[in-house]
Amino acid sequence: MEELSFIPDIPSGPLDAYRNSATFNWKQLKLSLEGDIDLLKLKYKIWQTLEKDPLFAHNTVSPSLEEQKRITQLQLKRINEYKFLTNEMFKSSYSKRTRALMTINEAVQSLNPSLSVKMAIGIYLFSNALLSLGTERHLKFYEATILNREILASFALTEVAHGSDARLMRTTATYEPARREFVIHTPDFEAAKCWVGNLGRTCTHTLLFAQLITPDGTNHGLHGFVVPIRNPDTLETYPGLIVGDMGEKIGVNGIDNGFIMFNQYRIPRDNLLNRTADVTEDGVYESSFSEPSRILGAALENLSAGRIGIMQESCHTISSAVAIAVRYAATRSQFGERDREIPLIEYELHQWRLFGYVATAVVFRIYIESFTRVYLNIVEKSNAGLKVDNLSEAVSEIHAMVSSSKPLLTWTVLEAAQQCREACGGHGYLKCANLGDLRSHHEATVTYEGDNSVLSQQAGNWLLRQYTAARQGNAVDSPLGTVGFLADGHRWLADTFRCTTTDQLKTPQFITSTYKWLLCWLLKETQEKYESEMSKGLSKFQAKTKSQVYRWKTLTRVYAEYLVIIFSLESIEKKERELQPVLYKLFTLYGLWSLDKHLVELYQGGFGSGEALARLLRSAVLELCGDLKGEVVTVVDALAPTDFVLNSVLGKSDGNLYQNMQKAFFNNPGVFERAPWWREVVPSSKL
Amino acid sequence: MEELSFIPDIPSGPLDAYRNSATFNWKQLKLSLEGDIDLLKLKYKIWQTLEKDPLFAHNTVSPSLEEQKRITQLQLKRINEYKFLTNEMFKSSYSKRTRALMTINEAVQSLNPSLSVKMAIGIYLFSNALLSLGTERHLKFYEATILNREILASFALTEVAHGSDARLMRTTATYEPARREFVIHTPDFEAAKCWVGNLGRTCTHTLLFAQLITPDGTNHGLHGFVVPIRNPDTLETYPGLIVGDMGEKIGVNGIDNGFIMFNQYRIPRDNLLNRTADVTEDGVYESSFSEPSRILGAALENLSAGRIGIMQESCHTISSAVAIAVRYAATRSQFGERDREIPLIEYELHQWRLFGYVATAVVFRIYIESFTRVYLNIVEKSNAGLKVDNLSEAVSEIHAMVSSSKPLLTWTVLEAAQQCREACGGHGYLKCANLGDLRSHHEATVTYEGDNSVLSQQAGNWLLRQYTAARQGNAVDSPLGTVGFLADGHRWLADTFRCTTTDQLKTPQFITSTYKWLLCWLLKETQEKYESEMSKGLSKFQAKTKSQVYRWKTLTRVYAEYLVIIFSLESIEKKERELQPVLYKLFTLYGLWSLDKHLVELYQGGFGSGEALARLLRSAVLELCGDLKGEVVTVVDALAPTDFVLNSVLGKSDGNLYQNMQKAFFNNPGVFERAPWWREVVPSSKL
Repeated sequence: MEELSFIPDIPSGPLDAYRNSATFNWKQLKLSLEGDIDLLKLKYKIWQTLEKDPLFAHNTVSPSLEEQKRITQLQLKRINEYKFLTNEMFKSSYSKRTRALMTINEAVQSLNPSLSVKMAIGIYLFSNALLSLGTERHLKFYEATILNREILASFALTEVAHGSDARLMRTTATYEPARREFVIHTPDFEAAKCWVGNLGRTCTHTLLFAQLITPDGTNHGLHGFVVPIRNPDTLETYPGLIVGDMGEKIGVNGIDNGFIMFNQYRIPRDNLLNRTADVTEDGVYESSFSEPSRILGAALENLSAGRIGIMQESCHTISSAVAIAVRYAATRSQFGERDREIPLIEYELHQWRLFGYVATAVVFRIYIESFTRVYLNIVEKSNAGLKVDNLSEAVSEIHAMVSSSKPLLTWTVLEAAQQCREACGGHGYLKCANLGDLRSHHEATVTYEGDNSVLSQQAGNWLLRQYTAARQGNAVDSPLGTVGFLADGHRWLADTFRCTTTDQLKTPQFITSTYKWLLCWLLKETQEKYESEMSKGLSKFQAKTKSQVYRWKTLTRVYAEYLVIIFSLESIEKKERELQPVLYKLFTLYGLWSLDKHLVELYQGGFGSGEALARLLRSAVLELCGDLKGEVVTVVDALAPTDFVLNSVLGKSDGNLYQNMQKAFFNNPGVFERAPWWREVVPSSKL
Repeated sequence: MEELSFIPDIPSGPLDAYRNSATFNWKQLKLSLEGDIDLLKLKYKIWQTLEKDPLFAHNTVSPSLEEQKRITQLQLKRINEYKFLTNEMFKSSYSKRTRALMTINEAVQSLNPSLSVKMAIGIYLFSNALLSLGTERHLKFYEATILNREILASFALTEVAHGSDARLMRTTATYEPARREFVIHTPDFEAAKCWVGNLGRTCTHTLLFAQLITPDGTNHGLHGFVVPIRNPDTLETYPGLIVGDMGEKIGVNGIDNGFIMFNQYRIPRDNLLNRTADVTEDGVYESSFSEPSRILGAALENLSAGRIGIMQESCHTISSAVAIAVRYAATRSQFGERDREIPLIEYELHQWRLFGYVATAVVFRIYIESFTRVYLNIVEKSNAGLKVDNLSEAVSEIHAMVSSSKPLLTWTVLEAAQQCREACGGHGYLKCANLGDLRSHHEATVTYEGDNSVLSQQAGNWLLRQYTAARQGNAVDSPLGTVGFLADGHRWLADTFRCTTTDQLKTPQFITSTYKWLLCWLLKETQEKYESEMSKGLSKFQAKTKSQVYRWKTLTRVYAEYLVIIFSLESIEKKERELQPVLYKLFTLYGLWSLDKHLVELYQGGFGSGEALARLLRSAVLELCGDLKGEVVTVVDALAPTDFVLNSVLGKSDGNLYQNMQKAFFNNPGVFERAPWWREVVPSSKL
């Protein structure tokens, strides 16, 4: 085993009984889930550094809205000073650099989600966009952002009345040859850019997407522009702008989401990001699709990197949530026989409520770690100008994978956080349990970077194209192999349920082949519904809207679950031998627990009939829960960050639940004081 | 139609198009859902009074934790002054008085959920408990609480280490004959009472539940005591108490939940609530079950009234949530063909996401209104000493109904609030949308007044007893008739799915008979599982824990859904003719949309096989969504409170979405100001 002493040991305590029954070493599992010892060391270095910095101390009581923004901005400044991204990392390969940045992002997110959003948008997303959409002339912005940290950027795309449908954005950038400037204008409040992170109080520049209009009046569609917003020395906004903060939100209030209206605001011609198209000094629009593969790769990166980052953060969130709930379940006793109380974790119902999410946390991490490698490898090759077979097809497949996975992961993690909160009862409702904050910060992810409901429709488009190709005897365009099996669609669909014991279900083979059946059947159902609506005279658009419920929507979810299954299975097969028993159990639980949610389709489509299918599948789920009881406490040790990062009175690794609660209660500010406002509420004088 | 001009009209605006297609009058539906014109008038009077009172003005930014407590306590004082409960109401019948109190509670809860908790616990729960558990000697406390409002009480039952299992509480009250006092003591922090609303900062007395110990050392179990906590004139706590505030929570932070440890704290002997048992001056324990029916009735009231109140509040919460989401869906356009955007409400997927919850909101209200009448009628008769047939059986049935309904309603409303937030996209994540606060305040209800998971197990006990009786040919003890059909269990279970068109499913008959099948099958499954575990040698306790998942848990949920269905159906049959078409559609949607979640059981148990069952049921759901499109905007007009109470920038009744958003954005405090902390974050001097 590699040297893992840099991971702090866990103190001995009441959880030892459950820890002693584990079949594996938690540090080894932790390393395996991280996938890279250097990245794991980097993560611990960041956590340990920030734990010693009072600026990152946790607050017992939520700070005011304004104070949350102030702290987050100060923390960003401090993070810039720490230079966790060393020069060596910065100069290493694209893939290594990006992985390091992603690790920093995840480590920072676990302490303050607003801070990672601020950093991701303000520095990484902007500088990446400059590289992919801009040219040499924009290098000065790039260096000022990522190297010198003089620029804090934002990303202005969404408008008040238009979120998901970018084509109808109404902000314009009209070129004026006389002054060689673009004039940016917002026609009315409905076209104000909004939800722009960092714009409300702090950014110096924004990457604006506006309709480019040439002097002849032609609208050339959305283009990107670098637009100065604030003087970096004074944070005063420039004249011609109405810039405001959007106010309080459900979570991530450290981020200053803003809105902006432009009043005939001028920027230099050079600020157009002109890699794919430019306007000459005289005002002629010129498009230059000279390097399609590089542009595709760049587009891929911009679309997907942010969503992959969200999925990595989501894995952290579910890991923290299940760690808190499982440790609580193992230390909290309630009911029992003859007044001998037993820990919640001993109850089958409680196991069933939590263990599926523990398995999910592990399997999601393995999937995303593996998918990130595949993704970065392709982008790196493409950026380097190396030939990538079927690049454009691979780009489409990756887009479908990301568009379906981001909804699955973020929604599942939201459910998990809620279930963990409820499983901790009233004590879980305390802020100091940290389940509320984990949940409310995470909640934004189901909407931003592509609303989950809209995003998953995009994956369906690609899947149906592949299905149609396969039906017509053409090749399936699946360079990553995720739907290669559609070529034999008929064979998979002919499969039926023939198991008679739960052991037959608890195999990777049963899980993957059942998922293939499900995908084939849902594709058939969706396609038939779509065609039947078309045959009634509906347009493509209308037919698509009438094929979503129970079909398209389910299809893309099942596809994402299938991705999780095949990627994680492939990774688990290569893991250390000592870890394989527990990983296979977790994998199998995830697979069957997920299939449980699709039993209706399995019955409806004739995969199974009669009572055995549901009975055996559900019995298998419960058996796996029972089998995992002796492992989960150690599994969550591997999933959990340090106690400082976890920041939960219910989830501390020492397991001293009530001592920790007493300390938390007694440390509440003014806990034993008479209310400062007592004079206002006591009875008026009775004279 | 009765004179409804006291309900303010809704302004004309962009929503008119959808309002014009409704088949009914929204005010008439509103009255019908309220069930009583005087109560509806009272509600509007409260809302209109408080709208004019600056103390009840909404905050753009959440106040600090301390400020939320201060405001809530001041609001309570003001509510006491308004005397919404008139002397006439106070003197009317139990049933009338309680309904008025419930209406006041619901009206107040819709403005500040913490305030209604404060009031409900501090005044009503306490004074009711005095009446039912105490005797003449406690009348002074009663009058000081409900009439003079000099006492603000709390309810101390839960301990840090014991929530659901009351038997194991460890706080003791030991009688000392020499001084004729009880000595209250907390052995350690784990036995500290906690989650006591009003205790943290404000209550003057608590109703304490402690183990009563007589001088001979005998423990007589939990008894109630009135315990002074604070001097009402100064709000200073008394010596011998460690009383603290539990700190920040996920929601309802206006309530000061507290914990308390007693250090040999003395109270007079008279403070024991001695209706059922007393201790003589010499220290002899005497139990007096002289009036069993009255005691039963009283117990029933204490157990159930609070939970019924929670369900009423939940109905308000889901009404507000769907009102916001539906109005937003009807005013927010996105995507379309040839750049003609269409409102979200036109999309089948969006209808499916929301309309099931609109139907739920209506059907839940009708159910709870009807159930409250039945409940109050029985309690009233019992309190008056009138004979109620099978009172003890009725008490058991009502307890089963409440124990299963409270989980169903509170969980469903939690899902609804979340779905409504997501259906409003990013704008729904703004505090000013109010969906976040609705959700986080509501969240507590799935845990308090009986954790949902624990509570629903209690309903299962009763159901299985009735099932066993029916199987053995004995009478089913169901005075309210909810499970009378079990006598013919075999007949219902022989039913199978034979429909061939969706119209055959869209009938009350199909819905109720399918639910009866489901209940019979789940009872059989649960009982068989339980018996099979017993036959393996497990104890009753263990066998029960092994029968929860997929069985007991599902059974109690299905029972609650069935209650909603039979009670609401019976009410709808008596409603005004003009309202019946829309109410039947909503009822049918609720029924089929709920059955959709039990398709697995319908297949597994052999009610149906093949594809028709799922296909027809789901087609019927989608058809009903389409049918209701022209009605839902008007339905939510009937469900929604006034704009002031709804307090949502996305859900205003005028439908001027973007004007309202602009106003909200521009009114954020300091919206256009440079951040007050700008000096701390700009670059350091570059000299």
